[in-house]
Formats: sequence, structure tokens, C-alpha cells
Amino acid sequence: MTGRQSSEPPRFDATFQASLRDLILWRRDVRRFKTDPVAPELISSLIGLAASAPSVGHCQPWRFVLVERPSCRDEIKASFARANADALEGYSGERRRMYARLKLEGLKAAPVHLAIFADEETDVGSGLGRQTMPESVRYSVVAAIQTLWLAARAHGLGVGWVSILEPERVAAALKVQKAWSLVAYLCIGWPHEEHVDPELDRQGWQSKIEAEKLIFRR
Amino acid sequence: MTGRQSSEPPRFDATFQASLRDLILWRRDVRRFKTDPVAPELISSLIGLAASAPSVGHCQPWRFVLVERPSCRDEIKASFARANADALEGYSGERRRMYARLKLEGLKAAPVHLAIFADEETDVGSGLGRQTMPESVRYSVVAAIQTLWLAARAHGLGVGWVSILEPERVAAALKVQKAWSLVAYLCIGWPHEEHVDPELDRQGWQSKIEAEKLIFRR
Repeated sequence: MTGRQSSEPPRFDATFQASLRDLILWRRDVRRFKTDPVAPELISSLIGLAASAPSVGHCQPWRFVLVERPSCRDEIKASFARANADALEGYSGERRRMYARLKLEGLKAAPVHLAIFADEETDVGSGLGRQTMPESVRYSVVAAIQTLWLAARAHGLGVGWVSILEPERVAAALKVQKAWSLVAYLCIGWPHEEHVDPELDRQGWQSKIEAEKLIFRR
Repeated sequence: MTGRQSSEPPRFDATFQASLRDLILWRRDVRRFKTDPVAPELISSLIGLAASAPSVGHCQPWRFVLVERPSCRDEIKASFARANADALEGYSGERRRMYARLKLEGLKAAPVHLAIFADEETDVGSGLGRQTMPESVRYSVVAAIQTLWLAARAHGLGVGWVSILEPERVAAALKVQKAWSLVAYLCIGWPHEEHVDPELDRQGWQSKIEAEKLIFRR
């Protein structure tokens, strides 16, 4: 038993539930940032909340790397450029023209670059819960990322997840431990515009599927 | 441009930010449920919010399987029993005695069982963003799960993620498509008790790491 338990559980009312719904619906993948700085204390506090995400066996495998040096950022931008050029080659015709016009990252303007890794070999948690599904270590890191994303949006911050990157090259550029695998590279900053619909929906690339169609019963 | 855009972006004030922080801190992996039923409309609404999570290339790969038949639930419980017995073999001495005493799932009492899969071969989103990091398809599903988890907690519902399962056997028991891989098996229901500290912390298995120690700079 710890002292922390003595505090009373919070109650969440209908007003909060409605605002949380708005938060979830208005969270966006942002690619257009203002260059205005973000207070380091705000970033630390968001990372603190992210570290309260669930993790398998309480192994807390998230490792947060703030990428600040221009030389490191240049390597990330170069990795995106290569991966994106390769991806473009996979499309043809109108789809290719459309892909080429999409804005898929905000690496240049975003004041904060945050690479998030999973320490796949951590012995924190003594391996509990991850014998049959070792991928749950990386999944825990994603739970932290989504927590950070929602908390950031509640402060008006935009987050963009860049997945068009070469994960090994990113790990090498950032000189992280061998056991760490890249889960996400996030751009964070103040957004230029706010939308309730995803960029790829708005640009005609892919529309939303009705959630009811994704529910099955057994 | 769509009609949805016309609505005004919500503003989140300090009161909401503080409540969101409470929500994140008090979200727990719950293993002790009351057997009282949960309204199906509430579950549908939580799944709807989960389906508003970010997904790579807007591919929306989440597939939600409500496991209702007793025969299916029995197969899941049997899979847990096997995987957990194997896991116990990996510990010795005091750690083994401690592991044997831990409550790691709430499969029997939880009124709602929700298996969540990733459709790894979906062509929704036309492959955008997942050439170099195909695992981002599964990561999108985890973002949906964490969204559902937080929204459930805001309604007073508990969620427990069971990872001590044989994923192929679960997929076979639930007769899902070959391309779907199990990401999480969730127990959902009204919790018996509420805590701000994780079960594994409270039971002395693993304590929390200070978030500051998990931040690095490059």
C-alpha cells in the first residue's frame, strides 16, 4: 500500500466526457507548423503524462529522444526524402500526381522533434506479460505516444507522426542503444490551422470508414 | 473542403487540462470487475471514438471483435491458462511465488470481451506511409486502443489488456481473416476498486521510473 492511494478517485462528468470526445475528434496529424518555440516545461510535462501510459508488465519501455542538433535533423530530413522518393515510385497515373502534391511531414518548421524508441531488451518488469506477444513492448510505447498526442492537443499543440523514414538510419543518426527500435518520429509545434477531418480525407486520398462496419461478433 | 470543417475548433481550458491529467494518471489496467452489464450503446460509442485515432495513410486497420459466445470465451481462458503456466516456469524462488499470486486478467468476471486485430493487408489508404515501417499499421491499432481506454475510464469503465495469450490460437478460435493479427484482447467492465498506482507497483513487482530519466537529447 502506498500513500498515493489515499487520494480520492476523480469523477468525470458529462461536460468532461463531451470535451474529451471533442479532443479525440479534433486531434489531427499536423504537418503545417508555426516556427514559434514551445516551452520546454510543456514538453517535459507531456512526456511525463506519456510515461503514465499502460505498459506490459509495467516495463515502461519508452525512450524519448529530443532531436535538437541541426546536423541530426538534417539526417532525418534526408532519410524522409529518400523514403518518400521510393514511395512515390510505387504509384502511377493520377494517384502518383496526387501523392506528389500531398504534404506528409512538417520536419522543417516544427520547433520540436521527438523520436520515440522502444527498449526491446529492458529487464524492467522482469519480462512479465511479454512471453507470447513480445511485440507488446513496442505497443506500450505507442500507448504512450497516443497519450502524449491527446495531451498536446489539449494545450493547442499539433503533433505529426512521420513514418516515411528508414528506422535503422534514424537510430544510427541519433546514436541510440542497439536494443532500441524506432517506434515514431514526431514533429511538435503550434499548428497553422485546425481541422476536424484528416488531411488525407480532405485531399481526397482516403475517406473515413463507418466504425460500425469494423465491428464483428463471435 | 467538406462541410465538417465549418464547425469551430474547440478550446480546451485549464480545468479540462487538469481533468485530462487526472484521467491519464487514474487510467488503470483493471483485472477485478463487477459482473454488471455494460450498455451496448456505450461500447459502440467507445469503439466509434477509437476509430477516430490516427492511422498510417488513414488506413483505419482496426477490426473490433466482440467475443460473446461462452465457447469462444472458454478457448481464450484456456489459452491464457497455458501461456500463464509456461510463463510461471520462467521464474524461480521468491519471484516465482510472487508471480503465482498476481492477478493478471479478469476474463471470468468481465462482461465485455473485445479482441482487437490489425488488418495487415488492407488496401484502404493505398499503402501510404507504410513502406519503410509496415509495423505502423499495427501501431495505428494501438493508438485506437489507448483512445478507447481513456474514453472508457472517463465513463467509469475499467479496461484490462491481456497479453498472456497465444495470438494464433486466439485468431483461430475467433475465426478471423488470415490477414488479421491480434493486437490486444481487452476485458471491459465496471471496476471493483480504483487506484492511481498500477497493480504491479502496488504488489511490489515493479515500481515506476522517473520520466525525466527516460528523456535523452541529441
